[in-house]
Amino acid sequence: MSGDSFTEIKGGVTAPRSFLAGSVYAGIKAGNTSRADIAFIHSEIPAVAAGTFTTNRVKAAPVRVSRAHIRAEETQTIVANSGNANACNGVIGIEHAKQMVRATAKAFGVKERGVLVASTGRIGVPLPIEAMEAAIATAPGAVCDAKGEGSLRAAEAIMTSDTFPKEMAVELELHGTTVRIGGIAKGAGMIDPNMATMLAFVTTDATIEKKLLGEALLDAVEQSFNRITVDGDMSTNDTVLMLANGAAGAPALHNGDPEFERFQEALNHLLFNLARMIVEDGEGVTKFVTIQVHGAKSRQDSREAAEAVANSVLTKCAWFGGDPNWGRIMDAIGYSGARIREEMIDIYYDGLIAVKNGTPASTPFEQLQKVVAEPRFTITIDLHMGEAEYTVYTTDLSTRYVELNMGE
Amino acid sequence: MSGDSFTEIKGGVTAPRSFLAGSVYAGIKAGNTSRADIAFIHSEIPAVAAGTFTTNRVKAAPVRVSRAHIRAEETQTIVANSGNANACNGVIGIEHAKQMVRATAKAFGVKERGVLVASTGRIGVPLPIEAMEAAIATAPGAVCDAKGEGSLRAAEAIMTSDTFPKEMAVELELHGTTVRIGGIAKGAGMIDPNMATMLAFVTTDATIEKKLLGEALLDAVEQSFNRITVDGDMSTNDTVLMLANGAAGAPALHNGDPEFERFQEALNHLLFNLARMIVEDGEGVTKFVTIQVHGAKSRQDSREAAEAVANSVLTKCAWFGGDPNWGRIMDAIGYSGARIREEMIDIYYDGLIAVKNGTPASTPFEQLQKVVAEPRFTITIDLHMGEAEYTVYTTDLSTRYVELNMGE
Repeated sequence: MSGDSFTEIKGGVTAPRSFLAGSVYAGIKAGNTSRADIAFIHSEIPAVAAGTFTTNRVKAAPVRVSRAHIRAEETQTIVANSGNANACNGVIGIEHAKQMVRATAKAFGVKERGVLVASTGRIGVPLPIEAMEAAIATAPGAVCDAKGEGSLRAAEAIMTSDTFPKEMAVELELHGTTVRIGGIAKGAGMIDPNMATMLAFVTTDATIEKKLLGEALLDAVEQSFNRITVDGDMSTNDTVLMLANGAAGAPALHNGDPEFERFQEALNHLLFNLARMIVEDGEGVTKFVTIQVHGAKSRQDSREAAEAVANSVLTKCAWFGGDPNWGRIMDAIGYSGARIREEMIDIYYDGLIAVKNGTPASTPFEQLQKVVAEPRFTITIDLHMGEAEYTVYTTDLSTRYVELNMGE
Repeated sequence: MSGDSFTEIKGGVTAPRSFLAGSVYAGIKAGNTSRADIAFIHSEIPAVAAGTFTTNRVKAAPVRVSRAHIRAEETQTIVANSGNANACNGVIGIEHAKQMVRATAKAFGVKERGVLVASTGRIGVPLPIEAMEAAIATAPGAVCDAKGEGSLRAAEAIMTSDTFPKEMAVELELHGTTVRIGGIAKGAGMIDPNMATMLAFVTTDATIEKKLLGEALLDAVEQSFNRITVDGDMSTNDTVLMLANGAAGAPALHNGDPEFERFQEALNHLLFNLARMIVEDGEGVTKFVTIQVHGAKSRQDSREAAEAVANSVLTKCAWFGGDPNWGRIMDAIGYSGARIREEMIDIYYDGLIAVKNGTPASTPFEQLQKVVAEPRFTITIDLHMGEAEYTVYTTDLSTRYVELNMGE
């Protein structure tokens, strides 16, 4: 990361100027009587918004509402609850998501179309909407700026099976003005490319047009959240939202401008690190594994091969046990759909060659075992068929994962 | 199964006349000093053969050799070893597979092209070919007909992590003559549609042309082995082989003939039951789950939806824990790629409605729990989008599964 033109700072989503964050308690989670369960991120001045949403055809009600509201020219507030996904609740679900929006708009004195909504948690259970409306009414008194701990409290309020809150912020000079980008996220369970059961909210005080913000967010999501996979399942609720309020007073960013490139680089760094936190906090995860596929005939081929290896239950079980088992990797490449020639494939574990021309290489098994015993390692697959490449980030599959997912 | 025109009998692959089977010991499995590891099935008279093979692009050497030999007009002998898959061994692997064929042809006095070969076990380790050749030379003295236990011994010799040998035979009257069909199989681990790490060998003394035998086998495989899935991985070695030697002396079967339909029905029954044995013997399996998708727009849609549900790691963990969790089923349908409308979906557990129009139905949760507590149950999904349907057979995912697969 040498030569980076940004630095990591504290403050999460409130690091950018004129953003407030915080949380309230509405008692959504059964049996959990103390933890806040509704998070807010609020810009004191109108902002522009961008968002990416789950590609699952079963979409939670808040996803449907936010997909409509994201088209508004001005956005000011994000409201997000944990404990209940508000998915598979039919028309009542849509009405409840709208009630969350209405209560938030009223509390902060903003337009309803200026509010975005997200939910995560149990499917098929109606929200306790009256209790939530009452709690939301108290939100303006519960949010604070970077001098307080509002971002951390918001990050905690969206946690489900997450074991730690995820937040990050960076700052960089654009046209001589200090601009900041901050983010919070939650993950754990059902993490997959196309953003499964994952929420991330990003703020910036840069000045950027809505359309360009959308392009920047899409690029950053493609390099981060769309590359992570824990169990191959994709959720009904995944949402990434970003607000830009221009409060830094820097000149507007323009596509092609070197300053925009630097902004993009900082945004990518932020989202990649939030994504990595999500993977490393995946349910029962003991290893963070990077799968790089080189030399594919097409990007599609490289992606298919990488994702097949990353999602192979057998490969993931082997990693959990510290077994290099490149045979299972060859097998997954073979059924991935990617165009390959078995006798052209090379496989490396942290640079040590394990497979050469589709057959065992000379690296002693014990050395490969040492790599797979580490908490982080990289498997590089060279198909020697072309120039395309793709990288995904994944985990092992542990007995603890099964235990955590065998009942609710 | 009322009205079936066949009956189940004993004898496995030696139930059909003029078939011999048995096994020899070559010491292929490290540390296992007693269990036979090479199986033989031999027709005393020339037979016609049909086969279906893995679609994995990484193909074991025996698959490559058998795919060539299956084109021969006459076939007499199948040789199959466990303990070593002879996959990812490059040109040496091909040479070893051919040496297995050559030794078998010599031992039984048949043409090399009349021998089919299969292997299952570890990937990337050369076969101990000299020991195997010596053992194969003794094979003719180790095979016997239905009066002996040759079929059982062959079924045991191809076992890897299987916990019981799998064999079955049926008999039926065709044109007034008793015709028999027998089979053995091995599975466990990496079981998936398109026949993953699974071997099945079928014999019949019916008279049938090579081309029609191929069609009959393909139809039966499509209804059985291609519908089962334990972990979504597909192996490099999967092979189904069938020999028909005409020894019953019945008139030749012809397509469209009612007698052929009855033969097909009996063959389908045999393969389905071998496939079910494989699923129920899957590593760490505690439940056999049938997933039926009705009302899809196309067969492709119904298949995608069924396979997504069957392969969802989260859904399978929930079944292991006895948790109905229809939310995870809705989620899997949503990302399956099938064309759906959330608000049209109904889901039943053994006929009890759990989801109506995409939202929770009135069946008490406790009743759904009772279904999922059973060792066998059926989940029926009606998409209400069209007429197409598809069924797959799968299992839960247990902590024991992970333990069994975390190292070799």
